[in-house]
Amino acid sequence: MTLTFPAPAADKHELEAAGDFTPRFDATGLVTAVVTDAGDGELLMVAHMNAQALALTIETGIAHYYSRSRSKIWKKGETSGNLQTVVELRTDCDQDAVWLKVRVAGDDASCHTGRRSCFYRTVRQVENKAVMDIADDTLHFDPESVYAS
Amino acid sequence: MTLTFPAPAADKHELEAAGDFTPRFDATGLVTAVVTDAGDGELLMVAHMNAQALALTIETGIAHYYSRSRSKIWKKGETSGNLQTVVELRTDCDQDAVWLKVRVAGDDASCHTGRRSCFYRTVRQVENKAVMDIADDTLHFDPESVYAS
Repeated sequence: MTLTFPAPAADKHELEAAGDFTPRFDATGLVTAVVTDAGDGELLMVAHMNAQALALTIETGIAHYYSRSRSKIWKKGETSGNLQTVVELRTDCDQDAVWLKVRVAGDDASCHTGRRSCFYRTVRQVENKAVMDIADDTLHFDPESVYAS
Repeated sequence: MTLTFPAPAADKHELEAAGDFTPRFDATGLVTAVVTDAGDGELLMVAHMNAQALALTIETGIAHYYSRSRSKIWKKGETSGNLQTVVELRTDCDQDAVWLKVRVAGDDASCHTGRRSCFYRTVRQVENKAVMDIADDTLHFDPESVYAS
């Protein structure tokens, strides 16, 4: 990793301007990553990146995240083949989130359940509860065989 | 607030199925909210919601967030007039993030800088640094006059 990130400016206007990218990592060292399909704009997933994952992503053009459950760098699609090539990277006004527009290889699936998007369920109110309905149930791969090890 | 959220299931497959929405709030009581335009799908902003903000959003159909900097519920657009009407709400496989497809009122701007989207800057590598370029500099309102108090 050769890419380094300077410390964020204290000045709000400087943070919101053009210039050096100075990501504002949270107390656990992470920024939020929103991932959409570069073709049709569909929201595919939300993940997190530490400085190393962010640097690897920018340097290689392939999306890397930080897995909070496994406490390690996670090259998305390394097991399933569904690698994500970054077409464009953006950041938001306060630099604590990034937006990756990606092309997905393999089965064109970004969810570990085998679906294209992790956001396959809608939420609606039913009396004093909220319930989820499945909006997309198309499996692009069989998670049981792909993740069996 | 009449809407309540049951505790998340310990079983992973149950979390990923249809049924009661059981958001997995993090250690600070928040889920991530990704907000896109219901018309053209543009990513507008990323914010956070506690249980109260999530319940208010579902009950009223108007997006409410939790402001981490101000430590309070934040009805988006209350000052600027850029209220967000929720057309569809989704959640992801592990229920720690929600996706709001919204219609923005007022000036059609969701960033406090006056721009339509908070993600108005692209990031690219230049030698061992990453730099930001402004991709959208159209101001839909004047933040200095709107937020003056």
